Amino acid sequence: MMGRAEEARTLGKPLSGYTERSVYVKAERATRQSKTPEAGSSATPLADMMGIITPSALHYERHHAGVPTIDPEQHRLTVHGMVERPLVLTMAEIQRMPSVSRIAFLECGGNSGGEWGALTGPTAQRACGLASCSEWTGVPLRLVLEECGLKPGAAWLIAEGADACRMQRSVPVEAALGEALLAYGQNGEPLRPSQGFPLRLLTPGWEGNLQVKWLRRLLVTDQPYMTRDETSKYSDLMPDGKARIFTLMMEAKSVVTFPSGGQRLPGRGLYELTGLAWSGQGLIERVEVTLDGGRSWQAAVLQEPRLPKAFTRFRLAWQWDGKPAVIASRAVDETGYVQPGKEELIAARGLNSGYHFNGIKLWKVAADGSVANADA
Amino acid sequence: MMGRAEEARTLGKPLSGYTERSVYVKAERATRQSKTPEAGSSATPLADMMGIITPSALHYERHHAGVPTIDPEQHRLTVHGMVERPLVLTMAEIQRMPSVSRIAFLECGGNSGGEWGALTGPTAQRACGLASCSEWTGVPLRLVLEECGLKPGAAWLIAEGADACRMQRSVPVEAALGEALLAYGQNGEPLRPSQGFPLRLLTPGWEGNLQVKWLRRLLVTDQPYMTRDETSKYSDLMPDGKARIFTLMMEAKSVVTFPSGGQRLPGRGLYELTGLAWSGQGLIERVEVTLDGGRSWQAAVLQEPRLPKAFTRFRLAWQWDGKPAVIASRAVDETGYVQPGKEELIAARGLNSGYHFNGIKLWKVAADGSVANADA
Repeated sequence: MMGRAEEARTLGKPLSGYTERSVYVKAERATRQSKTPEAGSSATPLADMMGIITPSALHYERHHAGVPTIDPEQHRLTVHGMVERPLVLTMAEIQRMPSVSRIAFLECGGNSGGEWGALTGPTAQRACGLASCSEWTGVPLRLVLEECGLKPGAAWLIAEGADACRMQRSVPVEAALGEALLAYGQNGEPLRPSQGFPLRLLTPGWEGNLQVKWLRRLLVTDQPYMTRDETSKYSDLMPDGKARIFTLMMEAKSVVTFPSGGQRLPGRGLYELTGLAWSGQGLIERVEVTLDGGRSWQAAVLQEPRLPKAFTRFRLAWQWDGKPAVIASRAVDETGYVQPGKEELIAARGLNSGYHFNGIKLWKVAADGSVANADA
Repeated sequence: MMGRAEEARTLGKPLSGYTERSVYVKAERATRQSKTPEAGSSATPLADMMGIITPSALHYERHHAGVPTIDPEQHRLTVHGMVERPLVLTMAEIQRMPSVSRIAFLECGGNSGGEWGALTGPTAQRACGLASCSEWTGVPLRLVLEECGLKPGAAWLIAEGADACRMQRSVPVEAALGEALLAYGQNGEPLRPSQGFPLRLLTPGWEGNLQVKWLRRLLVTDQPYMTRDETSKYSDLMPDGKARIFTLMMEAKSVVTFPSGGQRLPGRGLYELTGLAWSGQGLIERVEVTLDGGRSWQAAVLQEPRLPKAFTRFRLAWQWDGKPAVIASRAVDETGYVQPGKEELIAARGLNSGYHFNGIKLWKVAADGSVANADA
């Protein structure tokens, strides 16, 4: 390792087959302490991210029974139920079909769950890090369903993973006939095991739990199966005691990643404020930034190309005068939907549920340059 | 590790901070045997790639004195010479400036060098793998030069790396005032050491050698410095004995990656042929594919969004009848430039030089489904 003075005095490391990151780069997914580390989540360090692509190694995780190690030669996808021709497909058969690639975000339905109450996130990672964005490659699910032939009345798919808990979700056939992919690639290479290697379902814009990893079975039915993860979990209990279920769409959201909680500005002067915005409904149309706790808002610059249902990076020049400031971002998507404030969200949905929090996240900058959670 | 029968019987691996790829995924950069592994190149396994993003761990390498291990806290960029205000910048100072991200390919000027003569590549990796595509993040170099103030007559920058050989290239100021970046990010995280951590020059569309890695110095001058790597190397000796120098633009090129040399089709039937195309001049406008050794050509489907100076993936449905076939692709960019055949290229430039080969690459498919280099 070389400091400035020693730079360039000796030959460096040789060529390699598959390279590692620098020993000086330490960003990691954050995991909450747990007695069952197989069931839990780890969050992308959003404040360390650049551009819109999340490195596969840092994509957020949410597992229910750990990460299985699957031999792709042995793996099969079974498609059966209300179909004319049931199929059992090998990975080679799937990958031989026409494929597409697209950049899309994934977000856990439980992302920002702590923001509903008192356990608000002290950093962008803790507050919003169950969201990531990759270039996914896979076969349009519609092609496989056309091959099988849906029977009249087919309305749902029960997607099942090959993890120990056989994680299951009911997926509306409309999604399958739309943009859904049988995804086998992520950021140019096969899916990482923690993202479902060798195969996962991908329904862009919908909550992460629906994107069943290690996908082994699609059962076509006329009704949802009311599985554990769409009834006791991933449903929204309203103030009147009724639960909203199958709230699949991830609505528009954004977060300022610089400056954000845990960082420190070295002094007054010019900075580039930046962050990420996304919407399950399509394109981000506008991101507005407040520097005075929400009294006034100004438009940030959106980095092109903007892509539907993908992270959009926004940037804004900010001359910090050294005085305390409260900053936040607010996303507007192409449908005109405006990311709500926390109070607005709680007024609409109450505090019974921990899912689908997409409220505005405020950071406070102190006179000494330290940045902290303004909701703490 | 689980086969089909054993799937989902036990809890999988726990959550992790930074994940690895599957033990079943083996794609690696190919390196030619060398007594000096610090000076050489390694090639991206293009046939294993999906979409347009190359994983950073598989981005091609071309080093002249190995990969230095640099402490970013100690690293400095010095900008001096014909400027009003010389600057020495820390990484923190650079990263505080306004940044942009863009997806762009990089290609070594020596990519496909063997294709000029008898050492043609048996695989897409060996034939064309000194080309890769990433989302890069950095500061527009123009901002730094505006901060320094170019003196009248300033026309070139001498860019110098912090590797042991102090790799130097002369860069026209026009590039610096255009799209050039001081890049510190790649695919969402800091550059990998083998791509120049913590800082490299990026001039999209121009040959890779110009994108000086481990960038430590920019000397502003009124003339190029005729460094080793722009005179004895990375110049094109023409048939008349004169050398073309500073041929920086990487012209339109493409390669079929499936089916490609070393692969085997399991039998006749429907396949999706696919490959990659790129041009240093901007957008790929069209890719044509031949299935009969160049007698006829048909348009492939280009995957959107196409981005200027980035890889573009093309796809074409192909019903293989089980008979021998010779396949290839031909790219056309937005300027109307058409990727030439090998003979056309040799007629124009002769065989004195190993650089800037962008000829059409042919693969032959045998009746048994094996695919091989048609130029061997």
